[in-house]
Amino acid sequence: MSQPLTPYLRVDVGRLDTNLRRVADRAAGAGVALRPHAKTHKCLEVARRQLAAGAAGLTVATIGEAETFAAVCDDLFIAYPLWVDDAAARRLRALADRASVAIGVDSVAGAEQAARLLAGSGVEVLVEVDSGHHRTGVAPGGAATVAAAARGLPVRGAFTFPGHSYAPDALVSAASDEAAALAAAGLGPVLSGGSTPSLAAADLGVLTELRPGVYAFGDAQQWELGVADPVDVALTCRATVVSHAGGRLVLDAGSKALGADRAPYASGWGRLPAYDGARVVLLSEHHAVVDLAGAPLPALGTGVDVVPNHVCAAVNLHDTLWADQDGALTPWAVAARGRNA
Amino acid sequence: MSQPLTPYLRVDVGRLDTNLRRVADRAAGAGVALRPHAKTHKCLEVARRQLAAGAAGLTVATIGEAETFAAVCDDLFIAYPLWVDDAAARRLRALADRASVAIGVDSVAGAEQAARLLAGSGVEVLVEVDSGHHRTGVAPGGAATVAAAARGLPVRGAFTFPGHSYAPDALVSAASDEAAALAAAGLGPVLSGGSTPSLAAADLGVLTELRPGVYAFGDAQQWELGVADPVDVALTCRATVVSHAGGRLVLDAGSKALGADRAPYASGWGRLPAYDGARVVLLSEHHAVVDLAGAPLPALGTGVDVVPNHVCAAVNLHDTLWADQDGALTPWAVAARGRNA
Repeated sequence: MSQPLTPYLRVDVGRLDTNLRRVADRAAGAGVALRPHAKTHKCLEVARRQLAAGAAGLTVATIGEAETFAAVCDDLFIAYPLWVDDAAARRLRALADRASVAIGVDSVAGAEQAARLLAGSGVEVLVEVDSGHHRTGVAPGGAATVAAAARGLPVRGAFTFPGHSYAPDALVSAASDEAAALAAAGLGPVLSGGSTPSLAAADLGVLTELRPGVYAFGDAQQWELGVADPVDVALTCRATVVSHAGGRLVLDAGSKALGADRAPYASGWGRLPAYDGARVVLLSEHHAVVDLAGAPLPALGTGVDVVPNHVCAAVNLHDTLWADQDGALTPWAVAARGRNA
Repeated sequence: MSQPLTPYLRVDVGRLDTNLRRVADRAAGAGVALRPHAKTHKCLEVARRQLAAGAAGLTVATIGEAETFAAVCDDLFIAYPLWVDDAAARRLRALADRASVAIGVDSVAGAEQAARLLAGSGVEVLVEVDSGHHRTGVAPGGAATVAAAARGLPVRGAFTFPGHSYAPDALVSAASDEAAALAAAGLGPVLSGGSTPSLAAADLGVLTELRPGVYAFGDAQQWELGVADPVDVALTCRATVVSHAGGRLVLDAGSKALGADRAPYASGWGRLPAYDGARVVLLSEHHAVVDLAGAPLPALGTGVDVVPNHVCAAVNLHDTLWADQDGALTPWAVAARGRNA
């Protein structure tokens, strides 16, 4: 195997395993199920490690991701309010022949449609409730009505994504909102929650299941939110110095390698573990311009590691993750890359 | 061919051809070369149409893109200050056996390195000058020194990317900066410029070559800058309504289908041709939350078209563009998707 060309993504397998173990142990200690979100890594090798560490199953965002991960997992939850048309129903029925499958619903019309097309398939539903992120999900008081509309499909319980945890000082309050919304849904037995930022504060007296994704790798968003220690970040993008224009560092890793995500609280488009205080200050498709905060510029041609802002976006831009085990690089396919449907 | 699943990208081939023809005619009328940037579409079918409309060759950003487009084009310019290591030199030599190949340089060290490893290959160089975008490129006064360091490699001239045209009211001034920087470089015969926003104001008395990319499709950025008329936008993302949570429209096209780019001047994460005033107001990986500006919500399951903010980013997330010719959809492969190296 020849050396990969920059920009490429490198996974520190030791750190990955430590991250997986830490969260798995916490879930096991509290007696709650861990169902990691596989959209973060889209990679069968990472999924196998999560399952080996004790995950009860996997969470995915699309039917396509479920089809990919059915190769290694027989318990899949599509945590998304799917509109089940004829094509989706055929695919879900085929999946349900191979695995336990659950889908999200967040409306009476969506639940009725799913019930009509999935009757007798074995596909179960969870009702999505809005705990404060205000994206999808019904108000907790409306969850029972949606569940009733899924007549004939087994209702597993309720789920929420407390995405409003992605803000400074919101981690604890979002976790509190999450538990309150799930408890108020009046459904069960499963009450499923969990974003990576809110994970440490999740109320494991209420939640029965956790669905974090980013915890596996960490990223610059988690670093800036204080959720991931930089020494635990397990995925970086290896880039090459191509220019010193304007006295700044320019790398060959742009938005097509790192992703263009930049949350309002982010201090740049990515961070550099080897340079304290450095920030990616300009990002275009194939250029990252870095302010090194006064450090001397590494020479042209030097390899430099960048932590992407949002690891889920970065992974989805690559066909391969390069798994680094004691310095030896092995290619891991990003098997579900681009599986948006 | 079955109907593609949402979210998918649809190309209006009639509009595409009109966009290609309009810019080709302008270049031909002024006697300047048109060398479209293929990073926008990454698609051999679109490249063939650009060449058939009179393009002199193609621009690309990476060696990998050049390798892909060598299948249809024998005149390729990698408009990027490459650091030419041994692996890059091998690939560039192989390319130069099939096609005319030029690369960018923007430093004495980079030019010396290229000269050392590419001597006798036939690869030519253009010196990148900074015309005000402040990303890569030397000051125009330093261009001759960089050119001299490429000793032994043919110097074709100078190029610049006036990326500071991507701002309200900056189109004309950026075009003026572009021409001034190229004229001041003191190199030739080729003086190559051109971003899509600055294109209409480009000084074709100075420039000898234009390298626009986005003009082929247009996108919401160009729409908001007043550069593309919405009726000329040739690429949209077809999405499905999945939720009415909170009384808003939620679509299944998120940042993994549209891209997460949001420039400071952008009024949202994308626009909807069928809904005047509508904006994508929240974008996550698989959700676009849309404010319809008071229009009635289309029913769950309805198909809705979204114009991505930045079409180059959107295309790179998909394996296929669905070419719509009089209502019939044909798959066009995104052949250079992910070719960052």
